[in-house]
Amino acid sequence: MGSIDLYGESERNETGCNIPFNNALDPEEFRRQGHIVIDFLADYYQNVEKYPVLSQVEPGYLRKIFPESASNNHDSIENILKDVQDYIVPGLTHWQSPNYFAYFPSSGSIAGLLGEMLSTGFNVVGFNWMASPAATELEGMVMDWLGKLLNLPRCFLFAGGGGGVLHGTTCEAILCTLVASRDRMLSKIGRDKMDKLVVYGSDQTHCALLKATKIAGLDLKNFRTIKTSKLSNFGLSIESFRSTIAADLEAGHIPLFLCATVGTTVCTAVDPVGPLCRVAKEFAIWVHVDAAYAGSACICPEFQHFMDGIEGANSFSLNAHKWFFTTLDCCCLWVKEPKALIKALSTNPDYLNNKATDSNQVVDYKDWQICLSRRFRAMKLWLVLRMYGATKLRNFLRSHVKMAMKFEEFVSNDKRFELVVPRNFATVCFRISPLVGNDKMLKYDEEVIGDTEGVNKVNQMLLESINSTGQVYMTHGVIGGEYVLRFCVGATLTEDRHVSNAWKVVQVCADEILGLDS
Amino acid sequence: MGSIDLYGESERNETGCNIPFNNALDPEEFRRQGHIVIDFLADYYQNVEKYPVLSQVEPGYLRKIFPESASNNHDSIENILKDVQDYIVPGLTHWQSPNYFAYFPSSGSIAGLLGEMLSTGFNVVGFNWMASPAATELEGMVMDWLGKLLNLPRCFLFAGGGGGVLHGTTCEAILCTLVASRDRMLSKIGRDKMDKLVVYGSDQTHCALLKATKIAGLDLKNFRTIKTSKLSNFGLSIESFRSTIAADLEAGHIPLFLCATVGTTVCTAVDPVGPLCRVAKEFAIWVHVDAAYAGSACICPEFQHFMDGIEGANSFSLNAHKWFFTTLDCCCLWVKEPKALIKALSTNPDYLNNKATDSNQVVDYKDWQICLSRRFRAMKLWLVLRMYGATKLRNFLRSHVKMAMKFEEFVSNDKRFELVVPRNFATVCFRISPLVGNDKMLKYDEEVIGDTEGVNKVNQMLLESINSTGQVYMTHGVIGGEYVLRFCVGATLTEDRHVSNAWKVVQVCADEILGLDS
Repeated sequence: MGSIDLYGESERNETGCNIPFNNALDPEEFRRQGHIVIDFLADYYQNVEKYPVLSQVEPGYLRKIFPESASNNHDSIENILKDVQDYIVPGLTHWQSPNYFAYFPSSGSIAGLLGEMLSTGFNVVGFNWMASPAATELEGMVMDWLGKLLNLPRCFLFAGGGGGVLHGTTCEAILCTLVASRDRMLSKIGRDKMDKLVVYGSDQTHCALLKATKIAGLDLKNFRTIKTSKLSNFGLSIESFRSTIAADLEAGHIPLFLCATVGTTVCTAVDPVGPLCRVAKEFAIWVHVDAAYAGSACICPEFQHFMDGIEGANSFSLNAHKWFFTTLDCCCLWVKEPKALIKALSTNPDYLNNKATDSNQVVDYKDWQICLSRRFRAMKLWLVLRMYGATKLRNFLRSHVKMAMKFEEFVSNDKRFELVVPRNFATVCFRISPLVGNDKMLKYDEEVIGDTEGVNKVNQMLLESINSTGQVYMTHGVIGGEYVLRFCVGATLTEDRHVSNAWKVVQVCADEILGLDS
Repeated sequence: MGSIDLYGESERNETGCNIPFNNALDPEEFRRQGHIVIDFLADYYQNVEKYPVLSQVEPGYLRKIFPESASNNHDSIENILKDVQDYIVPGLTHWQSPNYFAYFPSSGSIAGLLGEMLSTGFNVVGFNWMASPAATELEGMVMDWLGKLLNLPRCFLFAGGGGGVLHGTTCEAILCTLVASRDRMLSKIGRDKMDKLVVYGSDQTHCALLKATKIAGLDLKNFRTIKTSKLSNFGLSIESFRSTIAADLEAGHIPLFLCATVGTTVCTAVDPVGPLCRVAKEFAIWVHVDAAYAGSACICPEFQHFMDGIEGANSFSLNAHKWFFTTLDCCCLWVKEPKALIKALSTNPDYLNNKATDSNQVVDYKDWQICLSRRFRAMKLWLVLRMYGATKLRNFLRSHVKMAMKFEEFVSNDKRFELVVPRNFATVCFRISPLVGNDKMLKYDEEVIGDTEGVNKVNQMLLESINSTGQVYMTHGVIGGEYVLRFCVGATLTEDRHVSNAWKVVQVCADEILGLDS
């Protein structure tokens, strides 16, 4: 290596040592450039309302603009931000836009952002307590804080023998709890029975459960998607759960795991947690309650009844990055028996041995999750709780619910539309009603057969028409065979006027598709 | 809900709508507070050198300081930052300190930090292309850019039918590739043979492999930890690999997966990639090459020989958050056959259907990883590559190697010490040599039996003594039964003077333990 000009871009610093020209973490340079990026982002929030919410670019657009290889040369933050503005921003779907009503929100906030900046700035790797004690201790504390706000039973808190951990997303939380339940069961019945284990969810359960089942190596033949219906507002019925278990036992299978949901992905249905847990208990089934979206609302007393019976579950999770003002990613998982997680997920190589671990006085979070390395996610959740406080947080959430109620009222008052399921939180599922839709559809496409297909197609046309305006972004779902439009309030910047405007867009698009005469 | 005072903390905005007092993403408030946090972090970097590198707090310290529950009231960023300074900073182990030489680095940089800020600021959720096209497109492009810098064969690039994806950490990359290989094999031989599948690594392989094997539901009885020795500098020998396979075949097992390492965790040993891949090919074994730490160095031509034969591997990963100036987390994974990943990991619920996916013209990264939701990690890696350019990045890495060489020279010139293995990158493994150490040890503790235990114990005492100064932080490893101290240069702020000072600390502590007369 002697022949390489190590110092081609170097200079002597004041102590006479050779350092690379401009240390990549030079504090004053960071200060200067950091301020520039803060202003860039503040301007972005000022303007985000003006951008088409759903990006209008074509596949492959970026490769046509940017070079094929990295440059040898360095470049300035000013040039890079210009490219971000010119080429990246148009390719973004603006989840922070006040006109974003799609999927579930990704509710950023000043506190969440600043917390992420601090955590990124410290850039510690908190795999075990010793690698950065504050990261572990703050996480334990903040999970207890949030657990108390949710009125979680003491058995999920550290003081009650349980505990909380921050994962990336719900997929990770479900995978880890599934693996914990699998290994606990196999240690009793033997590995040779692995292919008899059964995993339960409903047809409304998030696909994370299927993915976790695949990754955990369980037999997909034993993955049960229990049908729900409008009769139970797409919640999982006890009778169906019980009869599915009975059939499995009859067939010699072994029930293992149920993922119940508080606020399902498409229509925010709520599975009856308490009754399901009671049935599960009879068969020693591990119950995970996935409240990825709706869990946040449960810091408000008026929503806590949706979690009734949670004391019967083994684990519970919500995504603070969805509707709790904490930037992606931040999934809060509480478990009753951390030991089950630790047993399934721990590894203890020599090079991580340390006295704190040996003392058994600390939590080593590496054994509560898939990965060894972990970011300091607690910082942002702590900032959200500290900076806003419980009262403001509840009012933020209630303001979203109130806006969703307003939209619900708009829909109810237009006879061309129908609400598909009752609104539980801040998501409204609606569609052009079958009579109106099907009549019109026949004019467009004579190949449409049957009422359902017709009305589904006209609603799909409506959604495409709405989103192509760029003024708002909504998404769809299919429940009970019906194509529905989803209007989910939760973007932090959304105000009443955005909801009113969104409804106007829906009406204009509907007028065009259905004819003004409808 | 009518009885709740939704507007207790509200005011009327200029358009006459009710909004919660202070929107949580108010642009001007974000600007003001963002500048404050930038200054806080810049000051932190200015001062980080002065803090004890390894935190000196006791388990449970934070619970004693902070309240047991979240407050109902909001608080100011100024108050919160004061608490961060007073209570969080002392509990941090300062991975960004120039005196941090432990584990592997977590090399932050201005570009990495600003990239993370932008990505957090946009806060998009890029599970599929349509959810934010720029996030997906930039990721594909930047993975090709980095692949080319590493001189990866075309089969790992998108243009060559392969492709790259950003995961959180190597644990995730190994789990996903292991699951892909498992499912590909089982689709050929049938699920009933799952318990015959064998996973191979060496006794130096990262524990991520064991963890992935557990999570994937494979039988730990078939997890092979092939012994290495000083003879091969702790690299996995072809002969051992071959004979282990032969024994497995003899026993009716089915070889599945090898994790080879370029730069092992303790002593940065390099497994012979090319020869191992040739053996693996004979038995259709999936080879993953884990270059978590050392992969970054391979953008320098003089290190690329360590990857010779990589074209025979199925997948390759490195952690840009370790030694590539990209903040945690950012694991770069390239695969030759994305289809194998996608087959194992994809789920396609109705609510994610979209035209771009149907066109088959786009990558939907949700099917390349464990989780559905994903952050816009490409932004920070792109900023690192753009802002520094390949030449500077190579010189940054070379300056670290040069500093490690300097430390190596210090060790060589002190007859009390020995280098345990040859230095390959910027990590030096050293210890008090057996003769010196054991003699001294006998004076301290007469219960010590045998040379190895004695010298290990004296080296452990030395490390504890070094770290208790707070002036530097190093960690240990055990290889071939020997306790070694690791000195890993890679913290971005480290300069020559920090290395010189670290050696002085080692000498002073050694003087004290061994006596000045040694």
